[in-house]
Formats: sequence, C-alpha cells, structure tokens
Amino acid sequence: MATIFSRIVAGEIPSYKVAESDKFYAFLDIAPLAKGHTLVIPKIEDDYIFHLDEQTYAGLWDFARKVAAAVEKVCPCKRVGVAVLGMEVPHVHIHLVPLNNEGDLDFKKEKLSLPAEQMQDIASRIAEAFDTL
Amino acid sequence: MATIFSRIVAGEIPSYKVAESDKFYAFLDIAPLAKGHTLVIPKIEDDYIFHLDEQTYAGLWDFARKVAAAVEKVCPCKRVGVAVLGMEVPHVHIHLVPLNNEGDLDFKKEKLSLPAEQMQDIASRIAEAFDTL
Repeated sequence: MATIFSRIVAGEIPSYKVAESDKFYAFLDIAPLAKGHTLVIPKIEDDYIFHLDEQTYAGLWDFARKVAAAVEKVCPCKRVGVAVLGMEVPHVHIHLVPLNNEGDLDFKKEKLSLPAEQMQDIASRIAEAFDTL
Repeated sequence: MATIFSRIVAGEIPSYKVAESDKFYAFLDIAPLAKGHTLVIPKIEDDYIFHLDEQTYAGLWDFARKVAAAVEKVCPCKRVGVAVLGMEVPHVHIHLVPLNNEGDLDFKKEKLSLPAEQMQDIASRIAEAFDTL
C-alpha cells in the first residue's frame, strides 16, 4: 500500500506544497514546530534515509538545501535546522525547521496549529522564493 | 581563532575519533544522547551547513552516511537519526544519534556521562566497523 507521503505526491491527499522536482517533493508539516517547518521527501518509497541509493540520497540533500534557502527567505530565523527521525511515517523525510534557539528543534513541544489560509500563504511564499532561487 | 572542532581535528584537543578522511572528521559527542552519538564535521571552518560549497556539502553527507553505517553496526538501535542545529559551536556538525524511539532525538533530555574507557571502546569499535565497510 502506498505511504501517506506517496499519496500526497500523487495528489490523492492535499498538501501545502512548497517545491517539486521529478524526483523530490517538499511540503509544509501540518503540525509544525515553527512557521515554515517543511518536510522534504524523495518520490520513491524507502523508509530509511541511509538505505537510499547513492544518487537519490545525494539528490535529496541537494534538493533540501535549495528548499532550506527558500524557507529561510520567507521565515525569519537564525538558521534552518535539520532532523531525520523517521520512526512514524515509513517514507524518508527530512525536517527543515526555522530555528531561533537551539531548543526550537524539540519534537516533544506542543506543535503549532495554524489556520489553513496562513499555511497556504506560507507555502505559496516559500514556493515563490524557491522558484526565484 | 580556530574553533574547538578545528582544534580537535588538529589534535590539540583530544577526541574519541571514529573516522577521518582528507576533508572530514567524525568523533563521539562527549555529552551523548545515546551510546554511539557521533558528530560528523568538515575540516574547513564554516558555521552553517547550507552555506558550505557544493562539493563539501555533498561530500559531508556522503561521509556521514558511511559513519552512520558503522555506528549502526556497533550500537544496537532501530536506526540512526540525524540532526543539524549548530547554534552552539560555530563549526558545521551533523549529529548522528542511534535511535530506538522517536523521542530519543531530544536535545533537552539529560545527556549520558560515560566513563572514558567505555567511550574509547565505543569509538574504537565504530572506527573498526568504518574501516571494514
């Protein structure tokens, strides 16, 4: 069965898309740690980042860097943090989280719940920033 | 002034080294979240991973993948998690943390304090695993 992320890539489940290439996809985390918290995934299904084939692994990190630059342009932060945990959804995903303090990358803290219009606005602005990189 | 990590690379400050190449270096975090928690760094000084030149950025992630494979061979875990925060030491470092639960990648939890002999034993075994990859 397709993972929830593959269903997002296929458009069967809606997402706040911020970037897409032939092999990768990026969209807002719906339970963000900070405004602009983005997930970057490969379109192929694999559940562990270190098991990706070399080309996909390298391509994913390259794509993530471009997405991070776009996130940083739109979301005020000291830098964009990176986390890969992957115990929940069995489809590789890199978290990109705008950080202002070391403690901001804390998956145990209460997630933000933003109105759909605000999520869409953030996604659109990151997408625009990505397109003009 | 050289960063503390550059001084580690230069051997001016001791470290529990697990792997080294001409451009990269990996060593145990002395305040680990889990046994085998490793830091992977480029030898050149830069304080933000997304500002590294393309070749160093790609090489660092490639090196980190090999280190993660060695960590995983030595430290029982479901997988090796990844985090890049970088608000404390102004020298790029990737955290590789053996994870058994999603909550294990929690920089707010109390760090382990392991005896030097145990740290050295872990480092030596990861180094050996790295060399035989």
